[in-house]
Amino acid sequence: MPDTETSLIGSSRGNSLDEVFQAANPVNGETLPTIYASASEAETDRAVELAQQANPILQALSGAEKAKFLRQVADNVDAIVEDLVAIVPTETGLPEPRVRGETGRTSGQLRMFADLVEEGSWVDARIDHAIPDRQPIPKPDLRSMLRPVGPVAVFCASNFPLAFSVAGGDTASALAAGCPVIVKAHHAHPGTALAVARAVASAVETCGLPEGTFSLLFGGGRTIGQRLVSHPALKAVGFTGSRSGGRALSDLAAARSEPIPVFAEMSSVNPIFLLPSALADGVEEIAQGLHQSATLGVGQFCTNPGIVFYQQGSSGDAFRSHYAQLMTESPTAPMLHSGIRDAYRNGVSTFSQLSEVETLAALSDSQEGLGCHVGSAVFEASAENFLSNDALSDEIFGPCTLLVACSDTVQMQEIARQLEGQLTASVFGNEDELEQADDLVAILETKSGRLLFNQFPTGVEVCPSIVHGGPYPATSDGRSTSVGTGAILRFARPVCYQGFPEDRLPDELKDSNPLAIRRVIDGSSS
Amino acid sequence: MPDTETSLIGSSRGNSLDEVFQAANPVNGETLPTIYASASEAETDRAVELAQQANPILQALSGAEKAKFLRQVADNVDAIVEDLVAIVPTETGLPEPRVRGETGRTSGQLRMFADLVEEGSWVDARIDHAIPDRQPIPKPDLRSMLRPVGPVAVFCASNFPLAFSVAGGDTASALAAGCPVIVKAHHAHPGTALAVARAVASAVETCGLPEGTFSLLFGGGRTIGQRLVSHPALKAVGFTGSRSGGRALSDLAAARSEPIPVFAEMSSVNPIFLLPSALADGVEEIAQGLHQSATLGVGQFCTNPGIVFYQQGSSGDAFRSHYAQLMTESPTAPMLHSGIRDAYRNGVSTFSQLSEVETLAALSDSQEGLGCHVGSAVFEASAENFLSNDALSDEIFGPCTLLVACSDTVQMQEIARQLEGQLTASVFGNEDELEQADDLVAILETKSGRLLFNQFPTGVEVCPSIVHGGPYPATSDGRSTSVGTGAILRFARPVCYQGFPEDRLPDELKDSNPLAIRRVIDGSSS
Repeated sequence: MPDTETSLIGSSRGNSLDEVFQAANPVNGETLPTIYASASEAETDRAVELAQQANPILQALSGAEKAKFLRQVADNVDAIVEDLVAIVPTETGLPEPRVRGETGRTSGQLRMFADLVEEGSWVDARIDHAIPDRQPIPKPDLRSMLRPVGPVAVFCASNFPLAFSVAGGDTASALAAGCPVIVKAHHAHPGTALAVARAVASAVETCGLPEGTFSLLFGGGRTIGQRLVSHPALKAVGFTGSRSGGRALSDLAAARSEPIPVFAEMSSVNPIFLLPSALADGVEEIAQGLHQSATLGVGQFCTNPGIVFYQQGSSGDAFRSHYAQLMTESPTAPMLHSGIRDAYRNGVSTFSQLSEVETLAALSDSQEGLGCHVGSAVFEASAENFLSNDALSDEIFGPCTLLVACSDTVQMQEIARQLEGQLTASVFGNEDELEQADDLVAILETKSGRLLFNQFPTGVEVCPSIVHGGPYPATSDGRSTSVGTGAILRFARPVCYQGFPEDRLPDELKDSNPLAIRRVIDGSSS
Repeated sequence: MPDTETSLIGSSRGNSLDEVFQAANPVNGETLPTIYASASEAETDRAVELAQQANPILQALSGAEKAKFLRQVADNVDAIVEDLVAIVPTETGLPEPRVRGETGRTSGQLRMFADLVEEGSWVDARIDHAIPDRQPIPKPDLRSMLRPVGPVAVFCASNFPLAFSVAGGDTASALAAGCPVIVKAHHAHPGTALAVARAVASAVETCGLPEGTFSLLFGGGRTIGQRLVSHPALKAVGFTGSRSGGRALSDLAAARSEPIPVFAEMSSVNPIFLLPSALADGVEEIAQGLHQSATLGVGQFCTNPGIVFYQQGSSGDAFRSHYAQLMTESPTAPMLHSGIRDAYRNGVSTFSQLSEVETLAALSDSQEGLGCHVGSAVFEASAENFLSNDALSDEIFGPCTLLVACSDTVQMQEIARQLEGQLTASVFGNEDELEQADDLVAILETKSGRLLFNQFPTGVEVCPSIVHGGPYPATSDGRSTSVGTGAILRFARPVCYQGFPEDRLPDELKDSNPLAIRRVIDGSSS
């Protein structure tokens, strides 16, 4: 019997072997040899208790100390890139260049947060000096800044096994805020998770931080996640995954005796609106761009463009047939795991059977080949049918596009008003048309976190101004972003200090401003 | 039969008279003459529909336009101060100086938000310029800023009939963010609510804004509130009131098919920790300050200090008896309405009967007099009993204090660790002791929104650095504040614009920076 890998509970390993699982190679469907044991309830509780013990120490770290730790994690992740190139493709089917790119993105995010907390202005420091002789009552001395919320649970995404997983954006932003993190590994890539977790745990040790700073829990089902989110000492949750999974965690967190926030990034069809000039200026360019975006990563990006609204006419017809041809000619490719593949096939099958929907491209299961290989699919529906059947706006996660022919821009507005919340919404056309589409853009603004003009939504830039969020069900909290420096705000809360002597205040709030950060003092920026 | 007043549904009045109610004067218990009709379900729905229609127009307002409107509301509120002086005391028992003071605070808050949005930097504008020749892929142009969340429901507080009610902090911050507001009046002060609502509605008309910008709903029970929070077009909720009421709304909002955020400010015992020197330096000063804070507004402040932890010894004994005497000698005074009075009496009665608790001061109901008059109460419990009985940390809303004698600072830490979330936590002592109490302060930081040193928590300064919030159950979202400029962040969400031409961007995000606001450009502040 091969070795069994267990969870990392702080600096120890789990020892329960009650429930075990193995991953499979999605390229050929073969079961991978390593056996992983799910964390027991006691191991899960122990991870949270260690996090709770680590909390006051992390809470007291300076920005410079947190930066040092985050850079050590980044260095450790970069150092195992060759291991990752060996492991990740076997568990996910992702090609080597993607693994190298995503490793760089992961360490890059960690360093971005290191820079952010080292510079320090992110804490939104505000100082209002006392006015002892104010009438009718004296004004007290008040100073506030953002502080960490406490232990955070992070649920790994299957579609970004590195950048949205063990040392991904949620973990990096929570650690940057000063929160201990307990990661629940995705069951489809446990080897990847373990390799990265060791890199994080090693950085914890190198930097002399308490072991409870970081734990990794394995689990085959939802039990461990529920136990984790229910623990009284847990204070917030980051999640990337399905709508049903995210909603289940949100409901659980809201029903706790002390409810806690869940930042779940879940479901988005990322609508694209093609104004007439977009197609008049070049059907092929749009069709090719869309094809590239819709099939990128086998359609498994959160920002995959799932529904395209265009205007009826000869250009529309040409676009429709050109796009269907490109998607028909796309080679089959492996999805990340059998769960995603099955959900995709079910979605495509359901759409194929709807009388309101015309199938322009779709392979049968038997044509799709080994393991988790699937083909691309294109469907078409009329605007009227789209408006009258909510099921047509459901996300089919994978390389699938629904085309909807609209009569005019007014009908596009009507459709936009009916959409659920989205991560992104894109408008294509010339600048004159964009000006005339102000109403459409204003509606889309209320529905999405990122608005794009003449660009496809896949490819999420990691930078201060990115918003990877959006109204429900795109996320469970539309006031947040899970990518970019703004992601740290999910794991911080303002605390005000009233009447504290200078030497008992955090450095960020001292009059002498030893960290030289940006602050608002007596109502003015300085 | 006297006239019946109905809800303000935009610029119309409600007409359903199915359910009516009257307020009572808490000073003498007499029913007041005016009859108010609860909004019907149809009227409630109509108010939200009007808000939804107003939404795109408010969404498009500039900061200057919103400022003009908020200042008009402020002027209109100031203009009715003599009416308020006539109405408010009959519905609340609050004295005239308090009504004048709270009117000024209300208009002051409106003007503070006017200044904030006119200046404009609150939107957290971030710009990342394109790098078209970046390798391996071009960097797109990305710009983000905060935008309004959509229609907001505000539930009036009974304890601040002006500053946390119809045109109070929740309404002011939601309007400032650009959100239409539907206010649910508190049933105890409908006349006050109507007077202020007319002032708001008049400003809506003067400024030429859509009628759905503001509505006021009357309702005697919870039905209207539930209907309001369940409406699909509603996007956020502000609430100040009881723990059970706030939790019911939060649960309802979380269970919606599209969950929405609820910012409920609910329950806090605002613990006070007296380090030895605080009493050694003067028992009388502390006792008098505490007495003033605990009886202010008949103990009906959210920040009322409900539990005081002190250290055993001769100073502690002297403090205990001096404080009990001050509270015993306090005159009876009317609480705001019979619901609050009954809850107070029940709380005091429950504590009186607990074997773990000693009653140092408490009047019987029959001694308390007319209407909603009540007396002050003081209880004492040992630290051991406090630690072993959760019921002892329950809030008794009113002029009631629980004293808890601790053996030392280590026991104070143990107690602090066990506390629920609080709006405030205060530490008294000299600076040397504060330095030694770093661990206690670090624990209290994780439990409260505002930490005070040598100051009592009542009196919430309205300014940029105030935090009137805290972990559950102090609020339902410990990452928020309901007082100060930060309150606007509850009703805003970030939106990113990718690849938009300069003239289609909001002014806040144009390269030319026509509003001259503070921004983060390519990672640097400017």
